[in-house]
Amino acid sequence: MASDFRLKEQLPALTQRIVSTYTRDDRINHLGHCPLPKYEIVVSILEDLKDILYPGFRRREGLHIGNVTYHVGNLIDSLHDKLTTQIGRALHHDDRVRGRSSDCENQIDYEAKGQSIAIAFLELIPQLRRMLASDVEAAYDGDPAVSGRDEIIFCYPGLEAITVQRIAHQLRRLGVPFIPRMMTEWAHQMTGIDIHPGASIGEYFFIDHGTGVVIGETCEIGSRVKIYQGVTLGALSFPTDSDGQLIRGQKRHPTIEDRVVIYANATILGGKTVIGHDSVIGSSVWITSTVASHTTVVLEKPNLRVRGSVPDELRAEANYQI
Amino acid sequence: MASDFRLKEQLPALTQRIVSTYTRDDRINHLGHCPLPKYEIVVSILEDLKDILYPGFRRREGLHIGNVTYHVGNLIDSLHDKLTTQIGRALHHDDRVRGRSSDCENQIDYEAKGQSIAIAFLELIPQLRRMLASDVEAAYDGDPAVSGRDEIIFCYPGLEAITVQRIAHQLRRLGVPFIPRMMTEWAHQMTGIDIHPGASIGEYFFIDHGTGVVIGETCEIGSRVKIYQGVTLGALSFPTDSDGQLIRGQKRHPTIEDRVVIYANATILGGKTVIGHDSVIGSSVWITSTVASHTTVVLEKPNLRVRGSVPDELRAEANYQI
Amino acid sequence: MASDFRLKEQLPALTQRIVSTYTRDDRINHLGHCPLPKYEIVVSILEDLKDILYPGFRRREGLHIGNVTYHVGNLIDSLHDKLTTQIGRALHHDDRVRGRSSDCENQIDYEAKGQSIAIAFLELIPQLRRMLASDVEAAYDGDPAVSGRDEIIFCYPGLEAITVQRIAHQLRRLGVPFIPRMMTEWAHQMTGIDIHPGASIGEYFFIDHGTGVVIGETCEIGSRVKIYQGVTLGALSFPTDSDGQLIRGQKRHPTIEDRVVIYANATILGGKTVIGHDSVIGSSVWITSTVASHTTVVLEKPNLRVRGSVPDELRAEANYQI
Repeated sequence: MASDFRLKEQLPALTQRIVSTYTRDDRINHLGHCPLPKYEIVVSILEDLKDILYPGFRRREGLHIGNVTYHVGNLIDSLHDKLTTQIGRALHHDDRVRGRSSDCENQIDYEAKGQSIAIAFLELIPQLRRMLASDVEAAYDGDPAVSGRDEIIFCYPGLEAITVQRIAHQLRRLGVPFIPRMMTEWAHQMTGIDIHPGASIGEYFFIDHGTGVVIGETCEIGSRVKIYQGVTLGALSFPTDSDGQLIRGQKRHPTIEDRVVIYANATILGGKTVIGHDSVIGSSVWITSTVASHTTVVLEKPNLRVRGSVPDELRAEANYQI
Repeated sequence: MASDFRLKEQLPALTQRIVSTYTRDDRINHLGHCPLPKYEIVVSILEDLKDILYPGFRRREGLHIGNVTYHVGNLIDSLHDKLTTQIGRALHHDDRVRGRSSDCENQIDYEAKGQSIAIAFLELIPQLRRMLASDVEAAYDGDPAVSGRDEIIFCYPGLEAITVQRIAHQLRRLGVPFIPRMMTEWAHQMTGIDIHPGASIGEYFFIDHGTGVVIGETCEIGSRVKIYQGVTLGALSFPTDSDGQLIRGQKRHPTIEDRVVIYANATILGGKTVIGHDSVIGSSVWITSTVASHTTVVLEKPNLRVRGSVPDELRAEANYQI
Repeated sequence: MASDFRLKEQLPALTQRIVSTYTRDDRINHLGHCPLPKYEIVVSILEDLKDILYPGFRRREGLHIGNVTYHVGNLIDSLHDKLTTQIGRALHHDDRVRGRSSDCENQIDYEAKGQSIAIAFLELIPQLRRMLASDVEAAYDGDPAVSGRDEIIFCYPGLEAITVQRIAHQLRRLGVPFIPRMMTEWAHQMTGIDIHPGASIGEYFFIDHGTGVVIGETCEIGSRVKIYQGVTLGALSFPTDSDGQLIRGQKRHPTIEDRVVIYANATILGGKTVIGHDSVIGSSVWITSTVASHTTVVLEKPNLRVRGSVPDELRAEANYQI
């Protein structure tokens, strides 16, 4: 290369300067002897689970009744090992962060705990399949643009998002730290749909299009609920304690009852807000109080200003861009 | 590892329980002897096509007039094979789903059909290049933040989305099932832009920023149309037949005529809705009826409540978060 | 395969037809002897930088004070080489596009310039770490759903987006073309957050959820600013010169002062628009003029139409979908 090798002689001094920032301010490094949960392994756990939940649709071809037991048995065995290790690390790191453990003590105890959680989670797979089969039905029944159930499993982002969230939700219920949120943020990156692992979601759940959907940590959603892109189910206020610190864990997000439909870009906020069953929330509606059952809520048609030409002063107003 | 190997003895029984769900409820598995279209191959087809549509910008370096024929010839040959196989599988799977074929009969006939479609599609590449060159021009003319055409091809998500959609649209017109939707959902994942393969889009098409754009299956869009982030071109109602089943295939989405500009977060709905040529639809407007040509539509300025301080009761109202 | 090999004989003629489009219309190809910046290398530069900015959280496990100097020194050396090459190519391509250089002259001079910029950039890493540590604090203080700082570094999309933007912004200030925008569009693809490398952003910056956020090229943002999903900080009009060409480079985007909070889906436009410090901009507000400090701006509650049942005519109105 044509660069000047003498300039490279600055690099060791720069390296020292960078390393000194690690000791001076350590809040954004992790240096120690105990490994953290590994993001790439968590993602591979999700891919392995999808191969078991929807066999034949993804990586492995040529599956049939004669060989599927080996396929599943192999994946379950590998998942057991990966989950045991990653959950053990997550539990240990969480205790370390909360000051309940010094670095790397009792690694063996954490792995044992990780194993019992891993097995408890894997036992839930038949139940997960039943829930996800209902979600696929909901998508098929709710979308006129779909040609068949296979299309949904091949590529619908809403199904991808709820698949990951149901997995993450169960791991969270079993007491696993970090990993559930890593999973749902990966799904958020893939689909643009952001559902916190804490949200409880009933069966036959369908998100269509989905980009921009945000569902908060303490949401409760019933069965046969349908949601469109850009919908926010959020919190209304964020109470702080006497030190001015945020209070974590309270119910801050709404409850959506059975058979509710929420159209694109609607915003529903508040831990006490309930959307009654069989209601319809129209596009772009903003709600912060309870809605009874069998109710429709739409915006009054906003007044539009319409001109038969495009005069300059209106062009200056309409013609904004980035 | 420190985990208890005796606990692993539960895993075979769990494997059996999972496999039994495959026979009991088979709607979300694919077990059989005929392979489905493979998502990873479909994505590689898109990457190969981009290397031909925009040579020199992606994977292959050092292309020049002396070697580009080998580069293209090699990719075309490989694309022929991949497309033949994947399209054949898609056609066969579609017939199987619709009950028109038993498992794995006539695989040879489906491959032959796949080949004729693959060749017909590849013959469209010169025409695709012309359309995409116009889309790059539209981006250059329409975005003051762009420094040059190369920047658009390097990294503009709007161009990525329309490139994939134009490919998927042609495959759909040639009668290919599944694969067009797999392609546009992959682009949706990459860009946050969701354009159904069925939408017909004219030349010089520009989407700026794009996150959250949804363009429905039966949209018709003219030439020199410009769209911003969060715009929905959607359906107004979803008619059902006498059995309560959704009717699929009708025109449900709007028609956008030439030289229309649609600003961020506007929503335009309905199969009978036409936005006349040379019109401007302002940000956040909600339209469900036809707009004449040379018309501007903006919202009446909504009343804003403004207080010179941030009192608690307003903070409770404004201070919502997730 | 069962396809007809005689049909493959059409492919060479098709190859020739495609190659002839390269000479006839060359605006969307890059054929020549000088390589362009390579997208995959630019992405790997970002991954290497994240390994230095947040050591121990990503690829490399088992880092501790005893070996971290080798880890960093190794990455710095490799980054020096990659940045030198890619920046050299970017500078050369930019001059070629602007007609200031013929193809492949003076490659050595461009690499030398690339090296001096690469080293100047790497020297900024300690300062980048300080800024990013403040951004992590801002996320921890601002989000009641977060369990700890590690969760933020593991997987928060807002932190991913600002990490990449701060890197890209510095490269842009050092005069690097193309690469900064390639970086922020990659972050846009990963997170749904679109921040132009030109935007100047103060410390303690937090974007929560983030999908759909758009921050324009000439935005200026102060310190301790918090932004939610769907917020647009955009331009109001796009002036053209006497030839009708867009004028590039003017301040077109707003200024946001310290300690401002902007809630979901708000839109703030215009190069002269200033949001005064300590103000709160409520959800879905649309602002095109300056707001004083210590001010709250919320929408008047829009009138909602509420019916106790779901009658057909309202269902037709509310029941739109894609």
